[in-house]
Amino acid sequence: MTEPARNRRIVLAERPRGRATLSSFRLEQVPIPALRDGELLLRTLWLSLDPYMRGRMSDAPSYAAPVGIGEVMTGGTVARVERSLNAGYPAGDLVVAHSGWQEFAVSDGSGLVKLPPDVVRPSYALGVLGMPGFTAYIGLLDIGKPQAGETVVVAAATGAVGSVVGQIAKIKGCRVVGIAGSTEKCDWAVRELGFDACVDHSSAAFGRSLADACTKGAAGGGAAGRGIDVYFENVGGKVFQTVVPLLNPFARIPVCGLISAYNEPKQPADGEFAAALMRAVLVKRLTLRGFIFSDAYGQRRDEFLTALGGWVREGRIKYREDVVRGLENAPDAFLGLLEGRNFGKLVVDVGGAGT
Amino acid sequence: MTEPARNRRIVLAERPRGRATLSSFRLEQVPIPALRDGELLLRTLWLSLDPYMRGRMSDAPSYAAPVGIGEVMTGGTVARVERSLNAGYPAGDLVVAHSGWQEFAVSDGSGLVKLPPDVVRPSYALGVLGMPGFTAYIGLLDIGKPQAGETVVVAAATGAVGSVVGQIAKIKGCRVVGIAGSTEKCDWAVRELGFDACVDHSSAAFGRSLADACTKGAAGGGAAGRGIDVYFENVGGKVFQTVVPLLNPFARIPVCGLISAYNEPKQPADGEFAAALMRAVLVKRLTLRGFIFSDAYGQRRDEFLTALGGWVREGRIKYREDVVRGLENAPDAFLGLLEGRNFGKLVVDVGGAGT
Repeated sequence: MTEPARNRRIVLAERPRGRATLSSFRLEQVPIPALRDGELLLRTLWLSLDPYMRGRMSDAPSYAAPVGIGEVMTGGTVARVERSLNAGYPAGDLVVAHSGWQEFAVSDGSGLVKLPPDVVRPSYALGVLGMPGFTAYIGLLDIGKPQAGETVVVAAATGAVGSVVGQIAKIKGCRVVGIAGSTEKCDWAVRELGFDACVDHSSAAFGRSLADACTKGAAGGGAAGRGIDVYFENVGGKVFQTVVPLLNPFARIPVCGLISAYNEPKQPADGEFAAALMRAVLVKRLTLRGFIFSDAYGQRRDEFLTALGGWVREGRIKYREDVVRGLENAPDAFLGLLEGRNFGKLVVDVGGAGT
Repeated sequence: MTEPARNRRIVLAERPRGRATLSSFRLEQVPIPALRDGELLLRTLWLSLDPYMRGRMSDAPSYAAPVGIGEVMTGGTVARVERSLNAGYPAGDLVVAHSGWQEFAVSDGSGLVKLPPDVVRPSYALGVLGMPGFTAYIGLLDIGKPQAGETVVVAAATGAVGSVVGQIAKIKGCRVVGIAGSTEKCDWAVRELGFDACVDHSSAAFGRSLADACTKGAAGGGAAGRGIDVYFENVGGKVFQTVVPLLNPFARIPVCGLISAYNEPKQPADGEFAAALMRAVLVKRLTLRGFIFSDAYGQRRDEFLTALGGWVREGRIKYREDVVRGLENAPDAFLGLLEGRNFGKLVVDVGGAGT
């Protein structure tokens, strides 16, 4: 692998008004800067594409600063140290970085996490053993507090977060109902992931199907003996509105994402839903709680890797990747992610085919 | 005090469609039944009027069964045992009961709580030392978790719950901003209750005034150094919509009531508020949690009475009652409560003037 003279990277060309499009992005080539003392050059192997990136494309107030116009799109990566003037990271090291949508990046070593040289699937560090897996783990266990016999519902059920949420809930003895965007995804969630049921939200019968899946066959879980005890919220919109009436008293709702709203700032809203939601919070004594990966990752990373690493090795948690080849295809793949076109954790193979 | 032959009581005449009116209620006289062995006759001294009663007038699904048409309106009371065939409750005992909007009630003793014969203000057992006080105590401390230096906002600030919430928050070292419906109430909250500020929600400048009160003069509390760390939700509607943008990251929102919605089932809603709320929950990592007095009262009553009783005796918690004389005036007073016409805890003096 020889080092080219130039770095290909994808920058934010303009802030989307409404839906993001291909013209929101621009692929450009720039020289690779010379390293200064203490720096190292990272070659991207795998780039993670995740829904939160849509938020970084907007300048609405959020928990993180937006990507600037003309700046490289933000993103987690698995990279190899290509050249190094930093004794802590010799050439050849594999690291998890946050080096963005580009083939090369210069780093001073801060924020890098080393991967063992013999790691079996480096890209898993961007998914089940990385940010999405941790989001699933912490949100479900700390906020959802699932008890054996309870009913857990998770949307985007075959995605990077949802698939892990549902499988951890199964390990904890819950009844798990997934929500996904196609029959194929639903079949896979039941057959491969072991969910008890999965409902297609694109079906006209979605509302009735979800109610049936949550209220029939449940083995006495929940305060009401039926209904939803934990709803892991990562999509919002229509799905959430359908879920609220099915929640049991004392249900818990970890809120880690609202992907249905990311690309639709003006959602066709039911004007009475806010009042209905607050009434449900009161009458059913619901707990809604937002959380973000980075709030707890520092303190809980080791515990998480021990737990998830074990479950993955034992085959108790299965994991599917949707691999897109070539950095130049990242924008289109990302737009597909916002529409649910991916099937499994979306990663871009930027140069990682051999790893 | 001689016992009349008949009981005057107020029953639910019809379920309100939209706003409750005087025709929702009916005053009637019925014979007092003879006591059977183990029973006792209660004479109502004080009747509590509380917003939750509006919920019992509707048959929408809730945490408690509705009052039936023609049934006595539900309500907490302080009563004296008038006559007794129950050795546990001899004539003359003072008790807290849930005997409803009527002058007499027959009880088998279940659910009664005795008051000491020398209790100074029996009606306080319906307010600061009863359900509203407990609601304030448990919601603020268990869910709100106020820390010294943080900013706590409470609406209905001079009401039975809000006035206690704000004063406990002051005891805990917080900056307290009240919201109330008139200049007179706001002045009283600041001058008598010791709130740092109080904003009139009927003023055209409400939004700006609340923002100013919450962001100026705060002594470094809160993750952002300004804004709201705890919002005790008891009103909903416009006030809640105004509060949400002012919430700090990691703010806590105990939800114990939504009085603005009780009488307005079809609220003029901002169609985008539900999405804005969920976005705030996610981005600011908010905790919203509904709770109801009775979920915890059994386990925490003694602790509560020790704490609140002490603070009231020491003058650290002040308490105002809005006393209406005569059972026949309860319906009009209750309708006023839903519109915020009361000033302080609303109680009906049914026969308690001498206590």
